Amino acid sequence: MTGSTPAPFTADDYRARMERAARSAADAGLAGLLVAPGPDLVWLTGYTPTAVTERLTVLVLAAGQDPVLVVPTLEAPDAETAVAAPVLTLRDWTDGTDPYAVTAALLAKDGRFGISDNAWAMHLLGFQRTLPDSSYTSLTDGLPMLRAVKDDAELELLAAAGAAADATFEEIRKLPFAGRRESDIGRDLADLLRRFGHSQVDFTIVGSGPNGANPHHEVGDRVIEHGDMVVLDFGGLRDGYGSDTTRTVHVGEPTEEERKVHDIVRAAQEAGFAAVRPGVACQEVDRAARTVIADAGYGEYFIHRTGHGIGVTTHEPPYMIEGEEQVLVPGMCFSVEPGIYLPGRFGVRIEDIVTVTGDGGRRLNNTTREMVIVD
Amino acid sequence: MTGSTPAPFTADDYRARMERAARSAADAGLAGLLVAPGPDLVWLTGYTPTAVTERLTVLVLAAGQDPVLVVPTLEAPDAETAVAAPVLTLRDWTDGTDPYAVTAALLAKDGRFGISDNAWAMHLLGFQRTLPDSSYTSLTDGLPMLRAVKDDAELELLAAAGAAADATFEEIRKLPFAGRRESDIGRDLADLLRRFGHSQVDFTIVGSGPNGANPHHEVGDRVIEHGDMVVLDFGGLRDGYGSDTTRTVHVGEPTEEERKVHDIVRAAQEAGFAAVRPGVACQEVDRAARTVIADAGYGEYFIHRTGHGIGVTTHEPPYMIEGEEQVLVPGMCFSVEPGIYLPGRFGVRIEDIVTVTGDGGRRLNNTTREMVIVD
Repeated sequence: MTGSTPAPFTADDYRARMERAARSAADAGLAGLLVAPGPDLVWLTGYTPTAVTERLTVLVLAAGQDPVLVVPTLEAPDAETAVAAPVLTLRDWTDGTDPYAVTAALLAKDGRFGISDNAWAMHLLGFQRTLPDSSYTSLTDGLPMLRAVKDDAELELLAAAGAAADATFEEIRKLPFAGRRESDIGRDLADLLRRFGHSQVDFTIVGSGPNGANPHHEVGDRVIEHGDMVVLDFGGLRDGYGSDTTRTVHVGEPTEEERKVHDIVRAAQEAGFAAVRPGVACQEVDRAARTVIADAGYGEYFIHRTGHGIGVTTHEPPYMIEGEEQVLVPGMCFSVEPGIYLPGRFGVRIEDIVTVTGDGGRRLNNTTREMVIVD
Repeated sequence: MTGSTPAPFTADDYRARMERAARSAADAGLAGLLVAPGPDLVWLTGYTPTAVTERLTVLVLAAGQDPVLVVPTLEAPDAETAVAAPVLTLRDWTDGTDPYAVTAALLAKDGRFGISDNAWAMHLLGFQRTLPDSSYTSLTDGLPMLRAVKDDAELELLAAAGAAADATFEEIRKLPFAGRRESDIGRDLADLLRRFGHSQVDFTIVGSGPNGANPHHEVGDRVIEHGDMVVLDFGGLRDGYGSDTTRTVHVGEPTEEERKVHDIVRAAQEAGFAAVRPGVACQEVDRAARTVIADAGYGEYFIHRTGHGIGVTTHEPPYMIEGEEQVLVPGMCFSVEPGIYLPGRFGVRIEDIVTVTGDGGRRLNNTTREMVIVD
């Protein structure tokens, strides 16, 4: 049940993406791209090998050359079922032969190539050994915006995934929290995401009380109590595209301080969103959100970047972080998710996926950002 | 629910493994090891990050140096819960700082390092950029036997995983095959593996009729018919250690040719197993199995290597393949799985996990290798 993503793209769509990628590579001074199994390969071909092993699978793209997918002979029948197979040349290699030599025959000997971030180091070393005059850059460094600008079909899929995550939040807020474990709520979130059409759940963070102060805490056995703040951050893939939203709820009435911290984070999220428009640098989104939190005196408790891109993965460029000068382009999609984390006490984070429009931003998550009181 | 593997190892066990790995690296002329999240890191520390992202997590091992785990600040609280945490130094880095500089400070500037096969190319490029005089080899190339020799506790876990896979086969053979889809049988196999204690199912190959002739076919929608050969190849992880076994069953009475092909594969599997003993090169196991099939006239239809190692993964060195001169050492564990694949018709494969003993081999799978007739 592998070989293709459920997203409604045709071989022609993939051909257009591969051509665009090859041209972008040439424009960036690269002799070609080496695309590994994972999100880059899914986006360019719709193909996902059954399992990623030490056996080399790589898509070779270069301007003016037909795309070639190098695959283990054993996996060739699967690759032939990929949606993009009709617009690809398959080059298979058998156990015991050298897959790097097979690939190198397709490459300029002294070229500089972009390679998928998540390609295996073992394979990069194989290319470097086989073509000692070649050089490499990761796709995030060399061509960071390869998948960043979404077309209309992709935006529709991202909006649908966002709506499914919103529906999940609307259901979870009705359920009892006090007396149940974080892991129970996490299971509910996963079930709801699947019920609303997700094929894959990537994370269900339920950070109650002090656990909320660890932004990457997932779920634990802690029993949620009356009076807890609870960070709920969840998402996954629906029809091949990602969702990711965070709301922080409170069990019963919050204290004044809890309400104040939530208000600051909400204002920071609003400021980050308001900064989104074409031509603005990513770091400006981070600065806009961070300034609100710093001005309120909580700067040292906002310990991560403001956002990350989303598409065929739930975590990709562009990053909303100080130092990122990439400018926003209509069609980009990313999270705006400031937070405040008070060690040993509680955390608050509010996150929407936002897409860049012609003159501003549009949220793909639309549940209330007011603090929701749960039971 | 991450941060540690369920395997019953202590911090001292991990310290011993890390010391052994650092010594092996020094013996192999390496200045140290860079260990990425995945099986190497699990085996050395018991630690698995919640999610593997572009954020660098790496264990640095070098002889005479304390082990250091470089982690994103966000993930430090998780890393602190790892079983090996008490015998590790954690070095965290924050978004916006350079994790390669943090790591490079721990490394000899012109050293040669072993790096996990599955480390991200992006991270290897970061090390190469930061330390331009350093060089690298994949662990499979530089230290292929790092995890290959299992200790008694590991062998017990592998034997238990094998017994669970055997129990799965004993149940599946009782179920009806004809009229059901491959995907139904696949689901049954997964359910049974879990019922017998597996926490993770890695693959459930159900190759019926012509689908059996593709060794890497997983499961499809094909309805199994009376008269089909069906290749059943399944496994996963139980208590952190792998299972992997294959039996080929027949729905109703086989033809003479089907029986003959099955007999050849069974004899080849027996010959491969019989070749297992300390001091023999891996390629001799492959040759022993392959010769039986070639002598019977089916050599061109045995299109993969004879076996692969197993441990904390279901697929790792050593490989039983022509050209592999590594000698067998007591405690190594690997598959012996010859097959014959007749395109468009059917396939037969028989696979046991075998461990090397003081004077031969011991099978960790013990269901019958005679052809089983199912309904």
